[in-house]
Amino acid sequence: MIRLFIDQPLAPGTCLKLDEKQSHYLLHVMRLGPGDALLLFNGRDGEWRAVMQPAKKGAAGVEVAEQTKKQDVPPDLWLLFAPIKRGHGDLIAEKASELGASRLLPITTRRTVVGRVPVARYRSIATEAAEQCERLSVPEVEETQPLAKLLEKWDPKRVLLFCAEAGEAKPIVEVLQDLKPGPLAVLTGPEGGFVEDEFKLLRAKSYIRPVRLGPRVLRADTAAIAALTLVQALKGDWAA
Amino acid sequence: MIRLFIDQPLAPGTCLKLDEKQSHYLLHVMRLGPGDALLLFNGRDGEWRAVMQPAKKGAAGVEVAEQTKKQDVPPDLWLLFAPIKRGHGDLIAEKASELGASRLLPITTRRTVVGRVPVARYRSIATEAAEQCERLSVPEVEETQPLAKLLEKWDPKRVLLFCAEAGEAKPIVEVLQDLKPGPLAVLTGPEGGFVEDEFKLLRAKSYIRPVRLGPRVLRADTAAIAALTLVQALKGDWAA
Repeated sequence: MIRLFIDQPLAPGTCLKLDEKQSHYLLHVMRLGPGDALLLFNGRDGEWRAVMQPAKKGAAGVEVAEQTKKQDVPPDLWLLFAPIKRGHGDLIAEKASELGASRLLPITTRRTVVGRVPVARYRSIATEAAEQCERLSVPEVEETQPLAKLLEKWDPKRVLLFCAEAGEAKPIVEVLQDLKPGPLAVLTGPEGGFVEDEFKLLRAKSYIRPVRLGPRVLRADTAAIAALTLVQALKGDWAA
Repeated sequence: MIRLFIDQPLAPGTCLKLDEKQSHYLLHVMRLGPGDALLLFNGRDGEWRAVMQPAKKGAAGVEVAEQTKKQDVPPDLWLLFAPIKRGHGDLIAEKASELGASRLLPITTRRTVVGRVPVARYRSIATEAAEQCERLSVPEVEETQPLAKLLEKWDPKRVLLFCAEAGEAKPIVEVLQDLKPGPLAVLTGPEGGFVEDEFKLLRAKSYIRPVRLGPRVLRADTAAIAALTLVQALKGDWAA
């Protein structure tokens, strides 16, 4: 069944008007008509079955019927990544959403000389992945900010797993097994790696744990996917 | 430094002629000249530093100098996957190579109605990923075969982790922790999932362990990457 994220309150009997993009998708791509059912979620009220109403002036309308899933509280897991190549950032946004990250934070580093980071596109990709993978929420996608600035206001209670491609680091499984429950974040660097100053900064913070992801040199996107997988499988919501 | 896979014996003092594609890459893309160094590996003799010789009739020549890494024995880990969408198969070939899979086996299932599976392209993608991630071998990429036929001649000593999107399955971490050391394989289904007959076949085999990859519905490519990551991190070569 079609499953859409909608940023409106969901309650039984409520009638909702969908925006232009979703109306087009439902009416013209999927060709739904009055009486057809779909699923809606908004990140707060769980998942609901809704029924299509007659369209008005091109806008699709739905009536919310009954709840199909209760809202869960997703793991508090952030991903900090430095997008360089276009495809890599898109892939990271999609896979991080599927793997249940709660917040995506694109960062700039000394070696990220990108033009505009396409944050709006990341939001759209992450939302579509959430719709398809049956999440009950969509990860927040922040505006790009410099890594150093982000770390200045960091809450030290949130452990940051730093996927280090060089220097001293423990195997990620070992680090995860020793962690107490609590908010987590994963940091992967840009394709060219971090510069020496950044390494120093990262290694000086008590909340940062440098982790190693095996003997091969993983690309930044692979490292992000692998680290999120291990966090979820060993400390996140995969145990259920 | 440039790092290339070459299917020729590597020993000190040996002079090698590179093929047209690699010659073009070294001479015209990377613009190497006589005296420039690069790294070579062939999956058998470890990694070697080699030095460019003057080109002859457009073919690059190198002289093998000294060994830079001894050959390792990579984990015996196969990946069976059902490629449907073009990009997904490419992504799986790249990431499986980075994650150290030893053999890639594209399969057809009842719901894979693909035309020709681009096995040659998968080989080229897997080789390039191996060159970049500093592997000492390149995964074998087999010709496509029907899943049922492949299972007929399966060695039951090789446990097959079946990423089940439905039905009874244990969390993958639990299954991995209970496994004795030995050859392994991962199976991910096509985007549309398996049909009931296939499920029955898969569940009837003693060497197949249905595994669950968390509460969200992962795409086939994400499932392959996540399962390979967990195998390597918990049972493979990440512990070193």
